[in-house]
Amino acid sequence: MSQWIWHFGEFEIYHNMMLHTRRMEYGHPEPPVWKVYAPEPVILFSKKGITDGGSVRITACGEYCAKVTREDGVTENYGKNRELVLQPGDYLLEIRVMNTDTFPALYVEGAVESDATWLSDDFSANLRAVGTSELFTDRDARPDVFPFAYEPVSFVSKEMVDGGVLFDFGKETFARVRLDGLNELDGLDGSDDLNELDRLDGRNGLTGDRVIVRYGESREEALDPQWAVIRFEDTPENGTLSYPAYAFRYLFVSDANAKVSAEYEYLPLPYRGSFSCEDDLINRIWKMAAYTFHLNSREFFLDGIKRDRWVWSGDAYQSLFVNHYLFFDPEIEKRTLTALGGKRPFVRHINKINDYTFLWVMSIYEYYRTYGDRTYLEQIKPQLDEVMKFCMGRADVDGFVRAREGDWIFIDWADIDREGALCGEQILYAKALECYAYLCGVLGEDAGGLNEQAQALQEKIQRYFYDDEKKVFIDSYESGRRHVTRHCNLLAYLYLPCGGEQKKEIYQRVILNDAVPQITTPYFKFFENQVHCMEGNMKYLEDSVRDYYGGMLQAGATTLFEEFDPTQKGAEHYAMYGHPYEKSLCHAWSTSPIYLFGAYLLGVQNTGVAHDTFEVRPYLGGMNCFSRKVPAPGGMNCFSGKAPAPGGMKCFSGTVPVPGGYVRVQADEASLRVTADIDGGTLWAYGKSYPLQAGVEKVIERKEGMQ
Amino acid sequence: MSQWIWHFGEFEIYHNMMLHTRRMEYGHPEPPVWKVYAPEPVILFSKKGITDGGSVRITACGEYCAKVTREDGVTENYGKNRELVLQPGDYLLEIRVMNTDTFPALYVEGAVESDATWLSDDFSANLRAVGTSELFTDRDARPDVFPFAYEPVSFVSKEMVDGGVLFDFGKETFARVRLDGLNELDGLDGSDDLNELDRLDGRNGLTGDRVIVRYGESREEALDPQWAVIRFEDTPENGTLSYPAYAFRYLFVSDANAKVSAEYEYLPLPYRGSFSCEDDLINRIWKMAAYTFHLNSREFFLDGIKRDRWVWSGDAYQSLFVNHYLFFDPEIEKRTLTALGGKRPFVRHINKINDYTFLWVMSIYEYYRTYGDRTYLEQIKPQLDEVMKFCMGRADVDGFVRAREGDWIFIDWADIDREGALCGEQILYAKALECYAYLCGVLGEDAGGLNEQAQALQEKIQRYFYDDEKKVFIDSYESGRRHVTRHCNLLAYLYLPCGGEQKKEIYQRVILNDAVPQITTPYFKFFENQVHCMEGNMKYLEDSVRDYYGGMLQAGATTLFEEFDPTQKGAEHYAMYGHPYEKSLCHAWSTSPIYLFGAYLLGVQNTGVAHDTFEVRPYLGGMNCFSRKVPAPGGMNCFSGKAPAPGGMKCFSGTVPVPGGYVRVQADEASLRVTADIDGGTLWAYGKSYPLQAGVEKVIERKEGMQ
Repeated sequence: MSQWIWHFGEFEIYHNMMLHTRRMEYGHPEPPVWKVYAPEPVILFSKKGITDGGSVRITACGEYCAKVTREDGVTENYGKNRELVLQPGDYLLEIRVMNTDTFPALYVEGAVESDATWLSDDFSANLRAVGTSELFTDRDARPDVFPFAYEPVSFVSKEMVDGGVLFDFGKETFARVRLDGLNELDGLDGSDDLNELDRLDGRNGLTGDRVIVRYGESREEALDPQWAVIRFEDTPENGTLSYPAYAFRYLFVSDANAKVSAEYEYLPLPYRGSFSCEDDLINRIWKMAAYTFHLNSREFFLDGIKRDRWVWSGDAYQSLFVNHYLFFDPEIEKRTLTALGGKRPFVRHINKINDYTFLWVMSIYEYYRTYGDRTYLEQIKPQLDEVMKFCMGRADVDGFVRAREGDWIFIDWADIDREGALCGEQILYAKALECYAYLCGVLGEDAGGLNEQAQALQEKIQRYFYDDEKKVFIDSYESGRRHVTRHCNLLAYLYLPCGGEQKKEIYQRVILNDAVPQITTPYFKFFENQVHCMEGNMKYLEDSVRDYYGGMLQAGATTLFEEFDPTQKGAEHYAMYGHPYEKSLCHAWSTSPIYLFGAYLLGVQNTGVAHDTFEVRPYLGGMNCFSRKVPAPGGMNCFSGKAPAPGGMKCFSGTVPVPGGYVRVQADEASLRVTADIDGGTLWAYGKSYPLQAGVEKVIERKEGMQ
Repeated sequence: MSQWIWHFGEFEIYHNMMLHTRRMEYGHPEPPVWKVYAPEPVILFSKKGITDGGSVRITACGEYCAKVTREDGVTENYGKNRELVLQPGDYLLEIRVMNTDTFPALYVEGAVESDATWLSDDFSANLRAVGTSELFTDRDARPDVFPFAYEPVSFVSKEMVDGGVLFDFGKETFARVRLDGLNELDGLDGSDDLNELDRLDGRNGLTGDRVIVRYGESREEALDPQWAVIRFEDTPENGTLSYPAYAFRYLFVSDANAKVSAEYEYLPLPYRGSFSCEDDLINRIWKMAAYTFHLNSREFFLDGIKRDRWVWSGDAYQSLFVNHYLFFDPEIEKRTLTALGGKRPFVRHINKINDYTFLWVMSIYEYYRTYGDRTYLEQIKPQLDEVMKFCMGRADVDGFVRAREGDWIFIDWADIDREGALCGEQILYAKALECYAYLCGVLGEDAGGLNEQAQALQEKIQRYFYDDEKKVFIDSYESGRRHVTRHCNLLAYLYLPCGGEQKKEIYQRVILNDAVPQITTPYFKFFENQVHCMEGNMKYLEDSVRDYYGGMLQAGATTLFEEFDPTQKGAEHYAMYGHPYEKSLCHAWSTSPIYLFGAYLLGVQNTGVAHDTFEVRPYLGGMNCFSRKVPAPGGMNCFSGKAPAPGGMKCFSGTVPVPGGYVRVQADEASLRVTADIDGGTLWAYGKSYPLQAGVEKVIERKEGMQ
């Protein structure tokens, strides 16, 4: 079967570039603030093989010319003929494609078909396997047009206000909008009259007045002429204005006669994960998280759909985990990772943020471990090497990474002591090194002592950043302030090989300690809630979901906000970054409950590569939940012990996608039922383990209390 | 004064990319065969300064947003407002521009003006001085449109042939063409009738039949349906077809009613050099060379205007020399060198040809020496470093460069022994090293022993490639064949520090030796004729021009051909590369007589930097002409001695452009008159030297015979 092919990475580079041009801010497109790469304009595609002969048909994005070298060594130039005929025997088919509008891509049918076995080169001595995608197998579906799906959405109410009309679509959506009936002359409202005018003077009965269109994630935003983030002022043609898709729930149009039609634009990904439980609020939040995540899952994983609509590596890292429990779609992960990785030369951190580069490396590890996709690993490896070379080249003589000019040490929006080498940054760097060493190992490449390097760095972090008195990690040893945050301790808990005792101290002295300032972003709640779950404290996750997200719902959310402060009221909720509506009301990093419930309540976790082994440890209350394994390069980090395990629901059920099927978990007061479609699973319940057999339901009687 | 600004190099990268999409071959655009770089889509421009305050107006190629950081540290976002107001005091103005259609560029007027003092970054930690051009000082002249000039050109005759019409424009031109009156219905030839039809059925009286349009540098080509290189088959709209500019003398249109209008498209460069002499044939050839060179001097120096219309580094090297004696335009040289240099990472030789990379480095040296433009040297230096790092990284352990996979060792279309390390290649590599060391020195950068490295390599070339018995250089010492070509000996003569004796041997044993196969390309005639001139053999240059180019004229040339074989007849002259009309009939590399007559007959040569010293050694016959200096990094290579000097004309005159003016040389039977507009010149005549004073004519009485 023929597929569209391109030079590996160029599809993502192109769509990433275009995506980054689409951010709107206060009436104008807002250019990106980091490196955006352009596609290469000329690519050589080639295929060597043996053919029975026959005709070959060529379609390309761009101009092309084809050359065939036959078995006898004779070369024939075919120019741009769409059809060429191959003689039986060995052949080498070479097609150069150029495209300065989008990017060069190729589709070949007939005696030879374009597919992943072709090679390509951007004339950089860089002949390698082409890129392909399941999305592009049809000749007429060009890969420079991203194949979104569309379906009509309607407003649920409208009101006349400020001399115009405000449409409420009932919930957040992402839709292209067409407005009709604009600037109709007074007293003319029927088509007959317009036709009459038409005949009279050819003007179609319209004046050239400009129309204001404002999008709002909130009613207040749509009505605010100064601070609505997405807004336009345009002159209708023939009474009509059309806009590409933007995020909104409310739409204000200054022309009170405006008729609106809208089409929801989305990537048609099936929901493969599911979840429900006895608490309907949590169910509603789970569904809202799924919808929020779907809206943000497009060409790539976005941060939010209104602002920025960009691709952030730290956000994407978390999206991978959510995707594993919702869509289980490897394609969007690959696209995102390829786009973020950029091109040679790699000279600035991804999104300018040091930690985000490390999280990108960790993401590739997570991707590989989830899908076992060695082909992709081989394809991304040159850029992974380039990125790691850059990172290692910027470490100081003591092996620690510190901010260089132009670097952004993010970690989180929080009061972190950022002087000198930062603890959290070193932990992520060491983890990235560890992941890199593992991935090199998968490909049988000499990791050049990377494992040892990672280990040495991890030991050094313990030596420099662990405060033996406080028994927790400090942000900076250089500042002398010995400042403690949740952030570095959470990262240490999750990504440093800490012992059980050390983790327990961290948990007690920092995470459960109200004197340590709370995490305020859902971004870091992702890490904190994991730790609660690992510590067997499902209650914290449940409470966090009920309170934090429940608060959003009460504030009117239809998708999950970027951040939420329960002390705020009304439109205060929409403000961020110093402006009234800059908060994203539909933000991917808030959707981690999908992952957390799947991994820690349903308890399904991949423990191998592509789920060749996996565990199902549903949260049954009691003591057993403390035993947890965290996947780590080279094996598992193990945590076990017994502790009271507050929280936990009696009744819950759900499915977790795995390669080739699902794991289904169903718990009620009487029993726990688990079915896996694949082998390799182990069910843990009340301290005992049961091997799972593909397709065979395992039923465990529910017990009260500890095992 | 405001100028358009862009990230250095991006203007050239963009126009080079577009240029490389325009080659047409047998009815389709022919994609390039080497690396073509794309412009960066997002650029940050910034300017720090002190202002009296006032309004600033912004125009951009692309979308933009502006940010001002005031003296008090407050930052104000202006978004895309075209006007912003600066308060008096220190300011930092930052404007991000994005453009995925062409390339980001910026024009700022008012209290702050965009000019060469601005900095820019492509978000690669790469903040550096912006690029500008004298061509773009007007707000409305966007730099993504190359500012060609146009003037109407008419055909001189037309004839009905093959059912269509053949227009002859009398000489080679490069013009955009508009065809009218296509597919007119029989019996309708007046506008009244057409209007009548219009009213009747709105069809404008035209049918949709396709029209064939064929361009020909020769009559035969325009009439050849199979092998005309540039040709189209299109359906007229409203009886009209329009085409961008292509090269042609003849134009065939399949519709016998076709009316043609054409506009010559050219870069309006004034001819600053001039030459005439007693031989009218030579005068005609000089003029034809000037026109040929002008046609090929566009965004960049082209190889030829029909095929390939690409930018080749070896061709460009020679074009620099011609430009110095014709347009003396530094801008086209900079554009060409910047485009050829490409971007990081530099991983393939320029045009895939090893020698062409070395010639690029040598070209930068020639550029700097001619104009003394330190600013450009600083701007191109990072890419020069990148290129040289690549070259040095590909040398073998013995220091010689050999072909690696994907390399093309060109030197010339000639029977050269290409086994192992090639003599000519090493000579050019050593010369490039020498030039690089010199240029590093100009910028006060430590050349890291490059001079010594170049010298060691040069000595090694002498040791390995000089045949002590034959007393000439051999192509390859590894093959054992000890094959002698003019090529490596010419390059040794010109670019190796050979002694006078060694050069004499080369000249006698190779260059004057008919047993050594002749040079067949004007490309290498450039080198050979220089050597004749240096040896005082002006006769060879004169004969070469009279015979070789005179032969072209007799074959009907109106511009100079890529190659010429006097044994061929008729349309045979147009064939090359295995196809009947693939020879370029307007090829830049054939224009070297402009340089050679200027440098060796008028005898004007820059001997310093930007003509701070220069010599005028008109060829006066006799013995004195043997004394020659050849500019070389670190000084001059000197050749002197006495020898009979055949050839030379009594009467000749001309001007040679120099910075800030001209040198005028006028010789007749009685006297030689020389005037220079600038100081620093030394006139040599009959073995004596005379200092030249700016603006003061020096008159020397002509003598017969030797001094």
